Amino acid sequence: MTVWSGLRSLRMTTPMEGQAPTGASDEQRTRSWWGWGWAELALSDEQCAHWAATIPGLPDRPLPVPSLDDLDLPAPRVAAPASLAAITTTALDQRAGHTYGKGYRDVVRALHGRLDAAPDLVARPATESDVVAILDWAADAGVAVVPYGGGSSVVGGVEYRGGDHAGVVSLDLSRMDRVLEIDEISRSARIQAGAMGPVLEGQLRPHGYTLRHFPQSFEFSTLGGWLATRSGGHYATLRTHIDDFVESLRVVTPVGVNESWRLPGSGAGPSPDRLFLGSEGILGVITEAWMRIQDRPDHRASTSVTFADVADAMTAVRTISQSGIEPANCRLLDPGEAALSGTVGGGATVLVLGVESAHHPVDGDLALLVDIARDHGGVPAAPEDRSARDGGRDRAADAWRSSFLRMPYTRDGLARMSAIVETFETACTWDRVEELYHDVRAAMGEAIRTVTGADGLVNCRFTHVYPDGAAPYFTVIAAGRRGDEVRMWDEIKAAAMDVLSRHRATVTHHHAVGRDHRPGYDRQRPEVFAAALTAAKQALDPAGILNPGVLIG
Amino acid sequence: MTVWSGLRSLRMTTPMEGQAPTGASDEQRTRSWWGWGWAELALSDEQCAHWAATIPGLPDRPLPVPSLDDLDLPAPRVAAPASLAAITTTALDQRAGHTYGKGYRDVVRALHGRLDAAPDLVARPATESDVVAILDWAADAGVAVVPYGGGSSVVGGVEYRGGDHAGVVSLDLSRMDRVLEIDEISRSARIQAGAMGPVLEGQLRPHGYTLRHFPQSFEFSTLGGWLATRSGGHYATLRTHIDDFVESLRVVTPVGVNESWRLPGSGAGPSPDRLFLGSEGILGVITEAWMRIQDRPDHRASTSVTFADVADAMTAVRTISQSGIEPANCRLLDPGEAALSGTVGGGATVLVLGVESAHHPVDGDLALLVDIARDHGGVPAAPEDRSARDGGRDRAADAWRSSFLRMPYTRDGLARMSAIVETFETACTWDRVEELYHDVRAAMGEAIRTVTGADGLVNCRFTHVYPDGAAPYFTVIAAGRRGDEVRMWDEIKAAAMDVLSRHRATVTHHHAVGRDHRPGYDRQRPEVFAAALTAAKQALDPAGILNPGVLIG
Repeated sequence: MTVWSGLRSLRMTTPMEGQAPTGASDEQRTRSWWGWGWAELALSDEQCAHWAATIPGLPDRPLPVPSLDDLDLPAPRVAAPASLAAITTTALDQRAGHTYGKGYRDVVRALHGRLDAAPDLVARPATESDVVAILDWAADAGVAVVPYGGGSSVVGGVEYRGGDHAGVVSLDLSRMDRVLEIDEISRSARIQAGAMGPVLEGQLRPHGYTLRHFPQSFEFSTLGGWLATRSGGHYATLRTHIDDFVESLRVVTPVGVNESWRLPGSGAGPSPDRLFLGSEGILGVITEAWMRIQDRPDHRASTSVTFADVADAMTAVRTISQSGIEPANCRLLDPGEAALSGTVGGGATVLVLGVESAHHPVDGDLALLVDIARDHGGVPAAPEDRSARDGGRDRAADAWRSSFLRMPYTRDGLARMSAIVETFETACTWDRVEELYHDVRAAMGEAIRTVTGADGLVNCRFTHVYPDGAAPYFTVIAAGRRGDEVRMWDEIKAAAMDVLSRHRATVTHHHAVGRDHRPGYDRQRPEVFAAALTAAKQALDPAGILNPGVLIG
Repeated sequence: MTVWSGLRSLRMTTPMEGQAPTGASDEQRTRSWWGWGWAELALSDEQCAHWAATIPGLPDRPLPVPSLDDLDLPAPRVAAPASLAAITTTALDQRAGHTYGKGYRDVVRALHGRLDAAPDLVARPATESDVVAILDWAADAGVAVVPYGGGSSVVGGVEYRGGDHAGVVSLDLSRMDRVLEIDEISRSARIQAGAMGPVLEGQLRPHGYTLRHFPQSFEFSTLGGWLATRSGGHYATLRTHIDDFVESLRVVTPVGVNESWRLPGSGAGPSPDRLFLGSEGILGVITEAWMRIQDRPDHRASTSVTFADVADAMTAVRTISQSGIEPANCRLLDPGEAALSGTVGGGATVLVLGVESAHHPVDGDLALLVDIARDHGGVPAAPEDRSARDGGRDRAADAWRSSFLRMPYTRDGLARMSAIVETFETACTWDRVEELYHDVRAAMGEAIRTVTGADGLVNCRFTHVYPDGAAPYFTVIAAGRRGDEVRMWDEIKAAAMDVLSRHRATVTHHHAVGRDHRPGYDRQRPEVFAAALTAAKQALDPAGILNPGVLIG
């Protein structure tokens, strides 16, 4: 596969350098209804057009930023009763902004003004009673309810796709965003599900705590969304998913409120919480959770290691994952990904390692990790690039983080240029990782050529690793044809799901299933478990109103 | 509460000193049908009678070891079809041995010859097809199926307690005990569910691996039993339950075989495995699992620390649990428990700490742990008692382990003396731990006095700890009245479940629910989750044959 000479690094071609995605001016910013994050941080036409010179096959000019004035949404089919009027709206911007998540195919459809499936209503409950009232009304009225946190789903998780419901309400939890209680002894906090990452962290920080869950969507996703989708967070090893930080959940279902006891561990039957974690809104609406929080780490050490050979790098990562050292960060970037993120070029594979503690120095752990990497041919960053000395980060790690948070804005700009740009992720055991990596790159390369008629970019990083396997995360970039981008991507993605299924690698490690991953999930999910989940769904949501089409049915 | 002067240490009064529960002669030994483990290792009459002098209120002589010849079991109500004849039996010893688990109330009933609920048949499948055939026949014939691994349940998990079934078959998986496959790259093994601890470890050891799951029942319990009951194992922190080592499961249900994909991690819907982990045989029969295995550790360090004040010791343990060091062993023994186990006397609280690694030295970690303990008033063992130098164990830890493995035999001897002797365990968040500890001891002391008319012993240890809480494990010893022991214990246990429920502490951290814990579990389990579990059960076991009465229904 060709790596386009002009697109060695998105970092170099993104004129947002130094522009932090968040800042003191957040309050004056507007959420984008069609794309990622803050509307004010969308790339300019000129910034977008820049790529025409570097990615072969792109048009000269970007699609314009779409205007709400141009939208012609179908009229709402249902009206909320007077008792719910104060917490529901049919405002155009709200209906438009709640039509889709923020996946590539969502952004493209919004850019083209295709919002046929807009919800009839958007509800913004302020209390759990409001949630109960909405579900009661919806069940009586046969109205579908699509739970909505930050709306950052990239798998069609918040998008109604038809059925025989009388209408659709998008249930936006974002007003329920308070940290209600902190138990400093048990180091836990009771947090409302609608709290977005920065809002939640802002309430914990004055007490010296952090949830330390930093998915790429951190700024625009909620605790409830993380829980409902089994989000992957900050830690590369050990406690990788939000699941591991849950002490108890409150979930409003159509048949009642489910509240588990706050427990550090239990062996009393199948875990009630684990049924709702990953249920993606089909069993109930998570309204709050007791979460295990962390002391803010003040000992940190990190470095990066380069490898000439990607297979050696994988062996090093496997050895690290089985060493028991459990680094907080253990991110492997394949040569294309390392170049694209601006970390390093030259065809090297890069391993970014980080350790941290709120309790004791961690330099010794970092040294053990570096020794393992070196044993497998890794070359650690020169001492001046490490950074126990400058706050525990090094330049490669900083470049990575910066690129990581900017990427969704960059993605929107590329989408406006009718590039195909999306990610997908998986996990499998170590015995299959290397073959999977090569097979996915080959199959995706072939699919891109078949669909677009030209070569594209297929990069990979490992976001999380385990003693028994890894979670490879793939980025795809190719030139699409304006107006045909969604179909093209869907074909390419279908090829991805096929190759993952062939290897029995999970259809998703932390992006969730939603509606987009159903074909792969239907192959992966055991039939017997599907029968159990369907039965549970019927018991808890007898009217079938909750997020229809997701996971089952 | 009085600590009887004569019973400062069960260790000192147990003349089994130096007698290993397992040994080269296992093959010549016979499994006890009425009590723990090997019949040959049961205490002698003289050994039992010894306690009459130390525990006030006991009779002079023990109940005799019961004889199969004296049993008069009801005739089997059902016969297996000819196709199952080779794998089923109605032999008296098998029916008697499969009537109960190995809880106190089980042993006492067996001692008194009360085996009315003996299964009609015992099946010993050799293959998964056998399991399917048995379930098919049982569903057609309306025969209840009680899955049976090692039969070590202490919560009535393997005991049929009535209903409208045509008969009862105990489904003993112990012939399915092979490690089928080892994946050295992913460090995983495919293991049949009927493998008991030593059998399983014996197959992994030549390859340099261990599952490292050592519940007290280790010698006489199976992988499938551990999985079905969410067993608690070797590690005191982090990966405390068998759940954390599961890569995938195969489960035979009446509607088909459920097999999950081997995955190191996934975010694809609610975890299928987590529905079956802890399902205690009501949803299906676990036949095999891919398990994450470990390199055998060769770096170890451990020590013990004594505290004058139990509250200080708890604070030290909490600080350790929140430090991120994650010791393999972190066992707190309250003064009574420390004395009873022969670890130390003098009213001290003892904390046994252990760290281990297959990869790197761990002395530094132990030093950090000891520093924390010292900060909270702990006095570490004198250097010559620590034991990086003699293989990584110290005398206190050795005394503990020895006592730990002998305890069930001792328990049987005490039961023959009509002592009431049982344990129960729980978990709760740190904010409630100290109050719970005192309340349980007070409530149990009161219950013992009410039920027996005299004082008893109520000791506590913490078996597992978490950043947000601990798992206290209580031991109760009191003098019962011969012939009335079960009723007396049931009353005392009901008081225990009441006090746990009041504190919203789990009814079980790792002993499971079975039938005995149903009253507490019914209070703990959210109603909505119960509805979901009931629906799942009906979908997977429409004839209602699987382990009826456990968990729900």
